[in-house]
Amino acid sequence: MKVIQNGICAAKGFKAGACHCGIRKNQSKDDLAMIYSIQPCNCAATYTTNKVKAAPLKVTKNHLQNGIAQAVIVNSGNANACNPVEMENAELEAKVAADLLGIDTNDVIVASTGVIGQPLPIACIQENAHCIELSEAGNDKAAKAILTTDTVEKVIAVEFDIHGTTVKMGGICKGSGMIHPNMGTMLAFITTDCNISSDLLDEMIHDNVKKTFNRVSVDGDTSTNDMCVIMANGLAGNEEVSKEDDSYATFKEAFLFVMETLAKKIAADGEGAGKLMTSTVIHAANEAKAEVLSMSVCSSSLVKAAMFGADANWGRVICALGYSGEDFDPETVDIYFKSKKGIVQCCKDGKGLPFDEELAKEILLDDEVEIISDMKEGDAFVSCWGCDLTYDYVKINGDYRT
Amino acid sequence: MKVIQNGICAAKGFKAGACHCGIRKNQSKDDLAMIYSIQPCNCAATYTTNKVKAAPLKVTKNHLQNGIAQAVIVNSGNANACNPVEMENAELEAKVAADLLGIDTNDVIVASTGVIGQPLPIACIQENAHCIELSEAGNDKAAKAILTTDTVEKVIAVEFDIHGTTVKMGGICKGSGMIHPNMGTMLAFITTDCNISSDLLDEMIHDNVKKTFNRVSVDGDTSTNDMCVIMANGLAGNEEVSKEDDSYATFKEAFLFVMETLAKKIAADGEGAGKLMTSTVIHAANEAKAEVLSMSVCSSSLVKAAMFGADANWGRVICALGYSGEDFDPETVDIYFKSKKGIVQCCKDGKGLPFDEELAKEILLDDEVEIISDMKEGDAFVSCWGCDLTYDYVKINGDYRT
Repeated sequence: MKVIQNGICAAKGFKAGACHCGIRKNQSKDDLAMIYSIQPCNCAATYTTNKVKAAPLKVTKNHLQNGIAQAVIVNSGNANACNPVEMENAELEAKVAADLLGIDTNDVIVASTGVIGQPLPIACIQENAHCIELSEAGNDKAAKAILTTDTVEKVIAVEFDIHGTTVKMGGICKGSGMIHPNMGTMLAFITTDCNISSDLLDEMIHDNVKKTFNRVSVDGDTSTNDMCVIMANGLAGNEEVSKEDDSYATFKEAFLFVMETLAKKIAADGEGAGKLMTSTVIHAANEAKAEVLSMSVCSSSLVKAAMFGADANWGRVICALGYSGEDFDPETVDIYFKSKKGIVQCCKDGKGLPFDEELAKEILLDDEVEIISDMKEGDAFVSCWGCDLTYDYVKINGDYRT
Repeated sequence: MKVIQNGICAAKGFKAGACHCGIRKNQSKDDLAMIYSIQPCNCAATYTTNKVKAAPLKVTKNHLQNGIAQAVIVNSGNANACNPVEMENAELEAKVAADLLGIDTNDVIVASTGVIGQPLPIACIQENAHCIELSEAGNDKAAKAILTTDTVEKVIAVEFDIHGTTVKMGGICKGSGMIHPNMGTMLAFITTDCNISSDLLDEMIHDNVKKTFNRVSVDGDTSTNDMCVIMANGLAGNEEVSKEDDSYATFKEAFLFVMETLAKKIAADGEGAGKLMTSTVIHAANEAKAEVLSMSVCSSSLVKAAMFGADANWGRVICALGYSGEDFDPETVDIYFKSKKGIVQCCKDGKGLPFDEELAKEILLDDEVEIISDMKEGDAFVSCWGCDLTYDYVKINGDYRT
């Protein structure tokens, strides 16, 4: 498997594009994107676990009942959630793409991100969607158009080999505030030219999301609009992957890599984030326990603020392990801080160790830091990803609607 | 019941005092306090639910096995947690008070708050504790000495009548960062001259803490050191309250009021807090559900940041209800923002309403705001307390140890 360029347009037969349709006031910011496959795709999706689900999710779920879609239309600037006309407008938004592309509305995936509670200005989508120029060079424009408070586009693509056939897969995503277990305000679109059944895609996307997007925490909130979609058009020409054989394993590994890479990009670009923070729990009794412990550290406001201050305050780490709800012996825990600059152990068997404060500072000033909690109980390990808590987080979220 | 002055020294027979013993570098900040009753007290306490429990909690729990104590010694500046000599030092700290007061070490409650993981500098406590002057005017000095990042002392006292006898009760507490369900870094000391059995105190303090301190959220973290203690010396001279009669009810009401008042003072003084935020869920199906929903709103970083910005972003409120884990029909929820300045409804039946943005802004600029979520399901209602998320929170926690 190797990393390649061109994101969602890397795989054969996929085009993308975007335009400014007018949902956002800032005309320099595109707010409507489309992704199109020249051939219908086997598809699967996962959706937010929030009890409040925005209309685009309901419409997409309905359209994907047959496991088939051919295009995505997605807007930023408005979540199309919690307003009286959300269902009608989500259907109308899908119809805009269907009409432009000459396909069935039922084959369109629709997604929205932005402010909750205001009716979607559907007229500007209907009037201006035709300005989108779909092309094989459209990845960057689409990747940018789906962003809200994100500061950078999040793109990855890989190619790999299935029994001598080259297969490509690429993805884009958005997600910045409100990222937490169970996906947060997160949209991810993944395309592949692999020939694979939608049943397997469905199984894999649910498995993978648990180990990737659900292990990201920016601020503990989850949103009404999250979804992650994969579209597979089969144009690579491989024999259909339809059971759990070695082709399946190869594909799943690539799929997990794409989703994990996108998840880490989301964490690193959390609202106001200064650095990517990885919380790794090692030697836990089992994976479920490792995940709860790791996420507790990753979600702690005090740990996150300490990372902002490059402060090796391991007491907050053990404290976060302690209130995770999981049972463990505090007197066996070791804690380390690590980055490209080195590694320092601050706690052994639950007690503080003397450590080199200057080295610790240097380690934590890096833009990617890892907190390692060794439970010394078993073989399970899990990493979760988050970011530091900064002044900018508060600034961005203090008055988002204006 | 009426509110009176003098906090923990309001009740008959209680004295308090504090000094700077040298744990903190800042000499203008007292860091050691004592509370003393001229007569042994019936006592009860609750402790942190964090898996990692600091030594002072273990020692206190041990000393309170017989339900009796006569004094409290408490230091700030060092948590005496997660260090190799914590148990020895917690016992030694209790012994310092016992020796000075001529009582049994077993009758001393010991508490600590501050940085985790560093050995308690017990020598400065041993050398300087004698500087504490215990007096009936010592409440304010003790209330101040137990603070860490708190900005104000938290004091309340009340008097009430039990069958013609005047009974007094007072409390002080500290708690600022790391305040969340299950008590956070919170110390509360409550004294009363009521004659009441320690069994009843024990039952009541556990009941009350669930409805007060456990409904406060500042930043989602809980600490290793939290405790809440009540001491009753019986000097009011009432007939002993020993069963669930009307005297019991009167006492419990006062006790709940004292704990709730202290809890709200903690929320309003959350690290960096600009305002007290009350999240009230009304018409929920039952109290447990109301509590989960209310706390989910109260703990949401995005809701808290919106309150900082005086932004009536009700979408974040419904979103937080939605990811609480509780089941409900999003299409029946109404949401209101309220303060002394007025009330505004922003959401009806899960959909946004047009509302007066200027009035909403004015309401949310107040220093005490309430978010009301009407579930329209039943009769249960619960308030939880928190604060807004501000630049100062990040600043205070970015480099706490220096």
